Amino acid sequence: MSGRLPGVAERAAALDAADPLAWCRAEFVEGEPPVRAYLDGNSLGRPLRATAARLQELVVGAWGTRLIRSWDEQWMQLPLELGDHLGRVCLGAAPGQVFVGDSTTVLLYKLLRAAVADAMERGRPQLVLDTENFPTNRYVAEGVAAETGAELVWLSPDPARGVELEHLREHLGERTGVVLVSHVAYKSSWRADLAEITAAAREHGALVLWDLCHSAGVLPVDLDAADVDLAVGCSYKFLNAGPGGPAFGYVATRLQQRLSQPVQGWMGHAEPFVMGPGYRPAEGVRRFISGTPPVLAMAGLADTVELVDRVGLEAVTTKALALGAFVVEVVDEHLAGLGVGVASPRDPGRRGAHVTLTHPDARELCRRLWEVDVVPDFREPDVVRLGLAPLSTSYAEVATALEEIARLLD
Amino acid sequence: MSGRLPGVAERAAALDAADPLAWCRAEFVEGEPPVRAYLDGNSLGRPLRATAARLQELVVGAWGTRLIRSWDEQWMQLPLELGDHLGRVCLGAAPGQVFVGDSTTVLLYKLLRAAVADAMERGRPQLVLDTENFPTNRYVAEGVAAETGAELVWLSPDPARGVELEHLREHLGERTGVVLVSHVAYKSSWRADLAEITAAAREHGALVLWDLCHSAGVLPVDLDAADVDLAVGCSYKFLNAGPGGPAFGYVATRLQQRLSQPVQGWMGHAEPFVMGPGYRPAEGVRRFISGTPPVLAMAGLADTVELVDRVGLEAVTTKALALGAFVVEVVDEHLAGLGVGVASPRDPGRRGAHVTLTHPDARELCRRLWEVDVVPDFREPDVVRLGLAPLSTSYAEVATALEEIARLLD
Repeated sequence: MSGRLPGVAERAAALDAADPLAWCRAEFVEGEPPVRAYLDGNSLGRPLRATAARLQELVVGAWGTRLIRSWDEQWMQLPLELGDHLGRVCLGAAPGQVFVGDSTTVLLYKLLRAAVADAMERGRPQLVLDTENFPTNRYVAEGVAAETGAELVWLSPDPARGVELEHLREHLGERTGVVLVSHVAYKSSWRADLAEITAAAREHGALVLWDLCHSAGVLPVDLDAADVDLAVGCSYKFLNAGPGGPAFGYVATRLQQRLSQPVQGWMGHAEPFVMGPGYRPAEGVRRFISGTPPVLAMAGLADTVELVDRVGLEAVTTKALALGAFVVEVVDEHLAGLGVGVASPRDPGRRGAHVTLTHPDARELCRRLWEVDVVPDFREPDVVRLGLAPLSTSYAEVATALEEIARLLD
Repeated sequence: MSGRLPGVAERAAALDAADPLAWCRAEFVEGEPPVRAYLDGNSLGRPLRATAARLQELVVGAWGTRLIRSWDEQWMQLPLELGDHLGRVCLGAAPGQVFVGDSTTVLLYKLLRAAVADAMERGRPQLVLDTENFPTNRYVAEGVAAETGAELVWLSPDPARGVELEHLREHLGERTGVVLVSHVAYKSSWRADLAEITAAAREHGALVLWDLCHSAGVLPVDLDAADVDLAVGCSYKFLNAGPGGPAFGYVATRLQQRLSQPVQGWMGHAEPFVMGPGYRPAEGVRRFISGTPPVLAMAGLADTVELVDRVGLEAVTTKALALGAFVVEVVDEHLAGLGVGVASPRDPGRRGAHVTLTHPDARELCRRLWEVDVVPDFREPDVVRLGLAPLSTSYAEVATALEEIARLLD
């Protein structure tokens, strides 16, 4: 059992033995063959066995047997019911504020357009975001600014960290309309202070739109408690909905009547099946839905929310941060001398559920790791991200990955 | 075997016996219990057995075993490769013009916005569409007009028919920018003349955006031959992708560089994984993709395109129109006296793959039909639509439905 890094495999074994979530690993589909070490659950979560079963049941039952009748029987409500469940278990959101649908990019566009239009009407043309924000967020914001005349105000945070309140404050003023922030930065894993940033923006009369892609399902996200305005997130990372799984959106109840989203579709109409002339938005959060809800693609999300509900989000968070601490410890102890740096916050209160390592040969390192069935991901220019999905990742997998990194760099 | 309508079941049996596509029914998942008569394949197509299997393989294999590596190995190309296959088999489109993604509503929004923006720049602010167009099309157009300043020009066609060239011509002029037409009208089943309308619009300097939701996979749609500009369609009707299956879009090669779509996402970027500053659209049709492709939801579409490729679209069309002719005949012969009217074109060259019946008590009739496991759909105010999906619908099912209608109205 002992490997190249003295004592590391043994520590991992002890941590796994004491892990109250260790049993959850068996809930996931085992690969054929099983993967040696999967550390990319923050890009694509693994499938639950329940999801394989749910999809089969869905194909034969609700789709294959009940056919079109399932829209009346369950599917029309599904994006809202699943949204409510997700909201309660993972987002600290009371019912009637969360819905599922669209790709993350599209849903971000819809909510950002709605927020910017509202801000422009209030004479607040500035949209504040940061250069370290996820690319699609930046591109969507550029597009929205181009079409609405909003002014983009760019923060340039420390790339090893992310958006910090003090820095943001300098850019908040009378002309600030909307602030777009990632809760956890995709590259550095910096965890922004959701409550404080929301409060500061609000104090200045701006709306905040949070990107929860890297925190939903794994970190506490208390949207109602922080009085958040708007949020979007994706379901294919820690929420295991599968490749291209749909996004979810949160619109605080107090804003639902006030905001208008641009993609007016029949599923957001007050009476979708009357099919009458003229768009009239539904009451409540349904108005932010546009097209037909993606039923198959919601299966994995439903299963993951059920599992998180069963074990409690707190246990998931605790393990995520413990896995991260283990990575940081081992890197400091054994890999620093091989040129590997930790580019994520060391403070677990400021870190998400992945740890970002740097190495000048990161690209080649990742390529070689993939060859030996150890799967982190590479990000330009020198980043290796280790994603730590607490429901499916063992300490042993982490140890294997770190051992292989040491071997390849040696 | 003989029922309430003399000779009808016998005729159906003879037609099924002679049907070269009869074997295809066994390719579909049999319900548990099997449905008596499903005539709503134009709202939600039935699942293929291959799709149940493909989803399982996907969950265990590409998703569960190859994990994130599948993006490199196959999924990044999937929306374009599947688009090309769909284009070749069902749409008469050469490679590089069709892609899969988004809901139909969202994709319609993206392409309509792109077309309207282009038209506005050319001093052509009018967007022409008809009051009988599918609701989401009308609502999206209203939204696009509101945000761009385009003027909506409404055609009011005969509700029992649809958009006709002569009528449309009256509304084409120097200020016409975009024409939005459904190839087959969702309510009446009127089949518009795709080639002639496209040519007329072009002659007047306008772009045409075709909605193919009710024709893709079942009727000939020769996009390249007709020199069509833009088209969208859905995959969950005759293409059997399942509830909320993704849309597909067609953008003629000659327009791809010229048009800009509003939802600028990383998946449409020239270099998605460089994640650099500034949106730069990809070459070719990829620029119309926004977010992460919905992989699970594409399974059923892939299977249906393969099946249509195997049997040939022509055979599918022939059976669709023959099923329709059978409905019209039986209604004329046996149900007209019970107050049932045929509200679809009798000319098969002008009809889609559903037949629209009218009856003053249509709503109650549909409710009762559902109770006896006969499934058409109801549309306001007095419409019963019989969807005829040639790969899965038998003449016997049609006969059963018509017998039950007769019984309930008696």
